[in-house]
Amino acid sequence: MNTPTSRRVGRPRAHERPASGLDPRDEVLGAAAELFTTHGYTATSTRTIAERAGLRQASLYHYFAGKEEILAELLEGTVRPSLDVARGLAPRTDAPPEARLWALCHSDVALLCGGPHNLGALYLLPEVRAERFAAFHRVRSELKDFYQELLAATAAGAALGAAELTLRTDLLFGLTESVILIRRADRDPGALAVATADAALRVAGVAQRSLAGLRREGQRLLAAGA
Amino acid sequence: MNTPTSRRVGRPRAHERPASGLDPRDEVLGAAAELFTTHGYTATSTRTIAERAGLRQASLYHYFAGKEEILAELLEGTVRPSLDVARGLAPRTDAPPEARLWALCHSDVALLCGGPHNLGALYLLPEVRAERFAAFHRVRSELKDFYQELLAATAAGAALGAAELTLRTDLLFGLTESVILIRRADRDPGALAVATADAALRVAGVAQRSLAGLRREGQRLLAAGA
Repeated sequence: MNTPTSRRVGRPRAHERPASGLDPRDEVLGAAAELFTTHGYTATSTRTIAERAGLRQASLYHYFAGKEEILAELLEGTVRPSLDVARGLAPRTDAPPEARLWALCHSDVALLCGGPHNLGALYLLPEVRAERFAAFHRVRSELKDFYQELLAATAAGAALGAAELTLRTDLLFGLTESVILIRRADRDPGALAVATADAALRVAGVAQRSLAGLRREGQRLLAAGA
Repeated sequence: MNTPTSRRVGRPRAHERPASGLDPRDEVLGAAAELFTTHGYTATSTRTIAERAGLRQASLYHYFAGKEEILAELLEGTVRPSLDVARGLAPRTDAPPEARLWALCHSDVALLCGGPHNLGALYLLPEVRAERFAAFHRVRSELKDFYQELLAATAAGAALGAAELTLRTDLLFGLTESVILIRRADRDPGALAVATADAALRVAGVAQRSLAGLRREGQRLLAAGA
């Protein structure tokens, strides 16, 4: 959708935007998400991202300092909404910790499976170990702490020693994030979110007979916008 | 360990090998595993791999057609040994399917966590979707079929409908592979393998009271070299 005037130097203008109607900043994020997950992070240049977003490269730099900042924002977008959900669930002591754990896992899986691109696949990029991505690692680690806190408050979790609790949290968090590895076009994200949250409670040590009731409570918490 | 004679053109010679005493082919695989997981696949050239392996680039091409073939071999090495274990466990109908599932998961996690480099991180490379890696995808898919077959044979699995069985297999296989996401230097791979195999049985629907006995049977199967 480039017009001749889009070649003018300066701040991006409305007529540079593609037909999607998105904000140019969101256009850049969407284009980068697609390119990073299909062509690879290393192989994608800011020029290619700008082209895909219908902007000039200079305009892209108006919104982002560079490719790393775009990646950092995409990564944080895969964990921050779940951290917000966790913070909303933490004080809901009227609901059992098991139901809150179910709700957190469901919501987290729905986020990781939502959207057209498997952004979680970017977690394992060697580049992401760099200091530049400390904020992402911090948010992801805070989110994991909420899993641990909820697990420790469950009946089965309260019986675990410190080392066992850490290991069980690794497994719970790993199970949730494993949807990154199994996410496929032919799978229904809603069914996967429910099944994963159920499986998380099983891993936490919840007995089969309690599962249906806790799932209903978890769904109620989510419907109430916890 | 390059010596002046290592510059000669032709087949690689014994004196080109680094001090490790490994076969040059294995040197190439080891060097590539390190470089792909630390610098990234796209950013690594066959020249760099050859240098790290103590070979000339021409010698590397004596063993591998190129970078893709090296990656394909590394990827297949993360699934083929587990497929062999699965094939060994399948006919062991003297042991309950739950114990065999425990053994398969334990062995798979130990493989994925073994070795100095997290090769599973390479599963999510966009490049790996290419036809060139069909053999890896086929072996990984056969391995997953064994998980499904064992799960279907368990008491809880036998009660699942076809769609539920597929979904539950996704979760079991995802839980096993999730060690790729949580693999860290400060975690004991042995403890993680046991905990993940236990968690797999919980996800499969095994009751807490049966877990310890099935774990012992699973460990016996592995010790017997199933």
